[in-house]
Amino acid sequence: MNQIICTVDIVLLTLHEGVLKVALLKRDREPFKGVNALPGGFIHSNEDSDVQDAALRVLKEKTGIDAPYLEQLASFSGPARDPRGWSVSIAHYALVSFDVINSAAHPDIKLVSVDRPSSLPFDHRSILETAVSRLRSKSQYSSLPCYLTGETFTLPQLQRVYEFLMGEALNKVSFRRKITEMDMLEAIPGQFETAGAHRPAQLYRLKKIFRQQLQLLDRGL
Amino acid sequence: MNQIICTVDIVLLTLHEGVLKVALLKRDREPFKGVNALPGGFIHSNEDSDVQDAALRVLKEKTGIDAPYLEQLASFSGPARDPRGWSVSIAHYALVSFDVINSAAHPDIKLVSVDRPSSLPFDHRSILETAVSRLRSKSQYSSLPCYLTGETFTLPQLQRVYEFLMGEALNKVSFRRKITEMDMLEAIPGQFETAGAHRPAQLYRLKKIFRQQLQLLDRGL
Repeated sequence: MNQIICTVDIVLLTLHEGVLKVALLKRDREPFKGVNALPGGFIHSNEDSDVQDAALRVLKEKTGIDAPYLEQLASFSGPARDPRGWSVSIAHYALVSFDVINSAAHPDIKLVSVDRPSSLPFDHRSILETAVSRLRSKSQYSSLPCYLTGETFTLPQLQRVYEFLMGEALNKVSFRRKITEMDMLEAIPGQFETAGAHRPAQLYRLKKIFRQQLQLLDRGL
Repeated sequence: MNQIICTVDIVLLTLHEGVLKVALLKRDREPFKGVNALPGGFIHSNEDSDVQDAALRVLKEKTGIDAPYLEQLASFSGPARDPRGWSVSIAHYALVSFDVINSAAHPDIKLVSVDRPSSLPFDHRSILETAVSRLRSKSQYSSLPCYLTGETFTLPQLQRVYEFLMGEALNKVSFRRKITEMDMLEAIPGQFETAGAHRPAQLYRLKKIFRQQLQLLDRGL
């Protein structure tokens, strides 16, 4: 049996000022010391219960963030992606609201637009593109976009997040029917948001069981 | 860095006599020697160019089969799934027509229904269930079911495969519109299938570029 380097990398995504952004961290060791990269690290066989657990641990250690939603993305592998040798990185993606990143107040987290071309080490560009593509396609038929909003939101706010990720305008009536069908939200009694000349809008939050577990639609939005 | 065992496992699926079946092989070594299991093996850092390449090599070595379509499924990991130690298996699934398995004529391949409860070693039951679930949901919006048919097929035959995988009847007109939209088939000039009292049906095959590359629909069938 040959020695294979086993790591996890995490694509931590958030929405900020209407732009989908990814969290990068300056690497504190070789290879690529000092370069901005996706947070990542070795799997620790003495403490991790599986690769998802490793990804949650690495994210917490490196950024201070407990991801409310983190999912396995895919494995990236080969002899050349890491100068240390043949490696497999099991990439995950996590979604958080900007508030969570902001309150983690980690001095070294750099948020950059996912569309902004920047040079990333290893095959992190490819991992990032795979994550964004997965998020966009899965938004069509799941509660995924909810993890990018704040803890509470109005239905028009949520619809705008879905539209932003899917890249298309959605019909309000059919959007609300699908959201009702997913049965993942609860109205917060007595809480409304007042914006401009509109009448106050009911505030919603994810039902507790869906805060860490995705809800899916059989048919897309 | 701790030693992690890195393997690939392959869920090889086919349709036979109207049943979705998985190919199992008797293990020729410990652990679980003599037990039927998914074909699998170690990643070889000296010869595999990535994990997909490892999966194709292991499948070919163990079953003699070159999979026309093989895709990464997910990683399965932890300290307890393999008695040899903390392990990651990067599971793949492959789809072939029954003819391909039949002509490989491998004496040790055992085809069993994916729904038939049977005891499988490691976490192979969970890997199998994940593969079947992925196949069923992805059939809705991709050319995946085509890889289970023979090399040539009529549109009614293809529709039956889609219906079988999706578990529901499909409207013939809308099915054909979606298939046309995917633009993945070509009619074989002058080849028809005559069945019973029906008029001869045109035979189709996958266009060459889609024989190993999936075609996707933006919206499901």
